[in-house]
Amino acid sequence: MRLFDFPFSGNGYKVRLALAQLGFEFEYTVVDLLNGETASPAFLAKNPMGQIPVLELDDGTMLRESNAILFWLTDGTSLMPNDRLLRAHIVQWMCFEQSNIDKVLGRTRFLKRYPEFMPTTRADWEQWYTTGYRALDVMEAELRDRQFLVGEHYSAADICLYGYVHCAEDGGFDLARYHSVRRWRALVKGQPGHVLITETGAANRPS
Amino acid sequence: MRLFDFPFSGNGYKVRLALAQLGFEFEYTVVDLLNGETASPAFLAKNPMGQIPVLELDDGTMLRESNAILFWLTDGTSLMPNDRLLRAHIVQWMCFEQSNIDKVLGRTRFLKRYPEFMPTTRADWEQWYTTGYRALDVMEAELRDRQFLVGEHYSAADICLYGYVHCAEDGGFDLARYHSVRRWRALVKGQPGHVLITETGAANRPS
Repeated sequence: MRLFDFPFSGNGYKVRLALAQLGFEFEYTVVDLLNGETASPAFLAKNPMGQIPVLELDDGTMLRESNAILFWLTDGTSLMPNDRLLRAHIVQWMCFEQSNIDKVLGRTRFLKRYPEFMPTTRADWEQWYTTGYRALDVMEAELRDRQFLVGEHYSAADICLYGYVHCAEDGGFDLARYHSVRRWRALVKGQPGHVLITETGAANRPS
Repeated sequence: MRLFDFPFSGNGYKVRLALAQLGFEFEYTVVDLLNGETASPAFLAKNPMGQIPVLELDDGTMLRESNAILFWLTDGTSLMPNDRLLRAHIVQWMCFEQSNIDKVLGRTRFLKRYPEFMPTTRADWEQWYTTGYRALDVMEAELRDRQFLVGEHYSAADICLYGYVHCAEDGGFDLARYHSVRRWRALVKGQPGHVLITETGAANRPS
């Protein structure tokens, strides 16, 4: 397998974290989205949406969308429940993450680091903080009486949400009052085989 | 089961279509999002995100996120493949739909019908049309050589995308050049048990 990714990406990190914890060997290729490489014909042939991450399987299949890759990697493992309702809850959290975390916490973090990437308005930032804190409120309420997001065990849902919630502060969010979210973050970080967002875990270990 | 829904919603329609085609009996409750009913304490207790649809299961479980509900309904049926890679492709299309169809085609359709719902700018509309046509281009390319979106059969992915693509014109999109997408729409519409977005299929059949 080969992961096409941008090391700063939390969406890429979700996949890297699952790959590491499941013990998969993979090669790693950096796609420099800051220099427009995701819009190149060569990359668009891999993913017509022009987004990383893309996981190329050994038969040449290109899997795109971080949450779909995460689903594929974990399906059939302890990270993806067999129970139909619990599996639907995983998908539910993935949908929640896509609209309320990736597009919000992920975006503020990216634009704090690369403000020249696109123009933004004060109204944009206000809307991101409103949506983001509301999403964190929902997570806080859900995690108040439970250790993990779905069922009794660490799962693909935790990996999915951890991708950008673990670095929410980088986007300007203050998590001081989110005690349950912070407890959950520490628990996720302590899971066997955990890697940091700055580690690729790839066989070819690029800088 | 009871579906909390707003009849105009394409997200609700995905669930109604799956319920009808799978032959499920269910009750139907209209939540009037135009009058703020999705922000009421009673509804927020069902879904803290304040969004329809919500499917209440017979044991009181509240399932939210249309694509998660669709996953749950179809899991274990012919609409959800058993094959791990095909199932990941279903999730891939659901992710694609959420960002590029629901938030774009769905939004333009809603705001053409209810322009007073929120203020918009010319730049908003330009961005929605750019994103929406790009998404339709991706669907057109994928459907050129295949009948359905995933594998050889009608699946949850087709239901998911059909929810808003079937009425793209209502949002101002011109599908004249999208021959494969239009062929696919006709094929989906011809599947056994198909219902229109204007039909609820519910046992209590509200107006």
